[in-house]
Amino acid sequence: MGMRVFNAISQRIEKEPYAQKLGIKLLKVEAGYSLVEMLFTNDMENIFGTAHGGAIFSLVDEAFEVASNSHGTVAVALTINITYHRAAKPGSVLRAEAKEINRTVRIGTYDIQVRDEQNQLIATCEGVAYRKKEPLPFL
Amino acid sequence: MGMRVFNAISQRIEKEPYAQKLGIKLLKVEAGYSLVEMLFTNDMENIFGTAHGGAIFSLVDEAFEVASNSHGTVAVALTINITYHRAAKPGSVLRAEAKEINRTVRIGTYDIQVRDEQNQLIATCEGVAYRKKEPLPFL
Amino acid sequence: MGMRVFNAISQRIEKEPYAQKLGIKLLKVEAGYSLVEMLFTNDMENIFGTAHGGAIFSLVDEAFEVASNSHGTVAVALTINITYHRAAKPGSVLRAEAKEINRTVRIGTYDIQVRDEQNQLIATCEGVAYRKKEPLPFL
Amino acid sequence: MGMRVFNAISQRIEKEPYAQKLGIKLLKVEAGYSLVEMLFTNDMENIFGTAHGGAIFSLVDEAFEVASNSHGTVAVALTINITYHRAAKPGSVLRAEAKEINRTVRIGTYDIQVRDEQNQLIATCEGVAYRKKEPLPFL
Repeated sequence: MGMRVFNAISQRIEKEPYAQKLGIKLLKVEAGYSLVEMLFTNDMENIFGTAHGGAIFSLVDEAFEVASNSHGTVAVALTINITYHRAAKPGSVLRAEAKEINRTVRIGTYDIQVRDEQNQLIATCEGVAYRKKEPLPFL
Repeated sequence: MGMRVFNAISQRIEKEPYAQKLGIKLLKVEAGYSLVEMLFTNDMENIFGTAHGGAIFSLVDEAFEVASNSHGTVAVALTINITYHRAAKPGSVLRAEAKEINRTVRIGTYDIQVRDEQNQLIATCEGVAYRKKEPLPFL
Repeated sequence: MGMRVFNAISQRIEKEPYAQKLGIKLLKVEAGYSLVEMLFTNDMENIFGTAHGGAIFSLVDEAFEVASNSHGTVAVALTINITYHRAAKPGSVLRAEAKEINRTVRIGTYDIQVRDEQNQLIATCEGVAYRKKEPLPFL
Repeated sequence: MGMRVFNAISQRIEKEPYAQKLGIKLLKVEAGYSLVEMLFTNDMENIFGTAHGGAIFSLVDEAFEVASNSHGTVAVALTINITYHRAAKPGSVLRAEAKEINRTVRIGTYDIQVRDEQNQLIATCEGVAYRKKEPLPFL
């Protein structure tokens, strides 16, 4: 069952409008886990010429979305906390990795870290999702 | 001095690559305050066809960036907490309003709320910024 | 029904072991609202002689507990975010006020602010509670 | 220098009023690291007879205080995010472990986890501290 869900999510993410808009790619999905990647392009710059916090968070949120939905039922974000540690350099390839910290019937909690290709820590996050009873609609 | 800073920020945001990418417009900037707007377009949809949390956060972060830099010196995001209350409907016009909760020499804290055109609450946030000594580079 | 719940909560808080330990008093409870008070005594000092963050948070959490349970069904804390703005002075009387930001069937979100008797802002919080179906056991 | 600071902090924590009030003991301190312990006693119960969130947070904050001050200069809490995963059982011995995620000249970020004696996860936190230039006053 796991593999069927992972494949369905992967196919869905490939066609997700927002992931396409930002060039986010899903590299890996497992039960309670995901790894996503994004190239920090010029159109993601903020008023200081560094990576916009919104672009970095978008990558984080994609990892969170995949990991929290990986159990086959719909999970929606309740609250996410992000801490920024270091500005991403233009042209960086950024990766966000989400790991499940805990899961109950209704709540899932995820630790998400963003690193650049030198493995430098860009941001850390904790996300809490509400888990509905219904199966993913695209299974 | 305030007005000169507000104008410089407004002009800078108009040309900000990431704000342009998402169609974010700055409606108002005052000392410790900002109001920004974004149309939730199809290319911001997630795997469920609702607004991607990353798109909503990007609007929040834009409001935060403007309000925290409105005092004329560079402020960078340290940490932001977002709580999602309601899914935004496709085609909604979303507004994020940032208000300064407190400001010390080095730290600024902002309350940011996202609402749709029916004034329904979409998300609430608290953002903490580190305030550097240097003036905004584009003044 | 509201008044019966408010009275039951008030009586329960008066006998709550932790509230007694810290001298926390409930001043007001309404639907989705509470106001609590605590005298910052010497035994709440940290290694710098100022109020321990844990004592201030305890006051916040009491306000959160009351406001989130004020609808008559059991609510448990999922996640709370606290930002400290100013050190509380020894001997201060601190008040925490909790206001409901939003409430759905399963989730309640609260804004909580701590102020001293000069109305200076000590801390701000956002708390998210999970709302169970069961009525409060002490009604 | 490290050892001298660790010893000074340990001695200070032993006499800290709030740590004494809650029976919190410091088990270990290293650069950017701490481990603290607390017995969950009856006087820490909330209105449901389980451990009050304020008591658990107090243990977390103690770990955060020690780890963030372990570099010998004064660090003060800016913001902390706590997520509760499981109610602590009466009579549990709870431990909070703080690990430094990142440290810059002015900012330190810490991951803090609370577990019971069965190693079950009770709460997870991220704390952000502002690092002043001044040395610890009790060195």
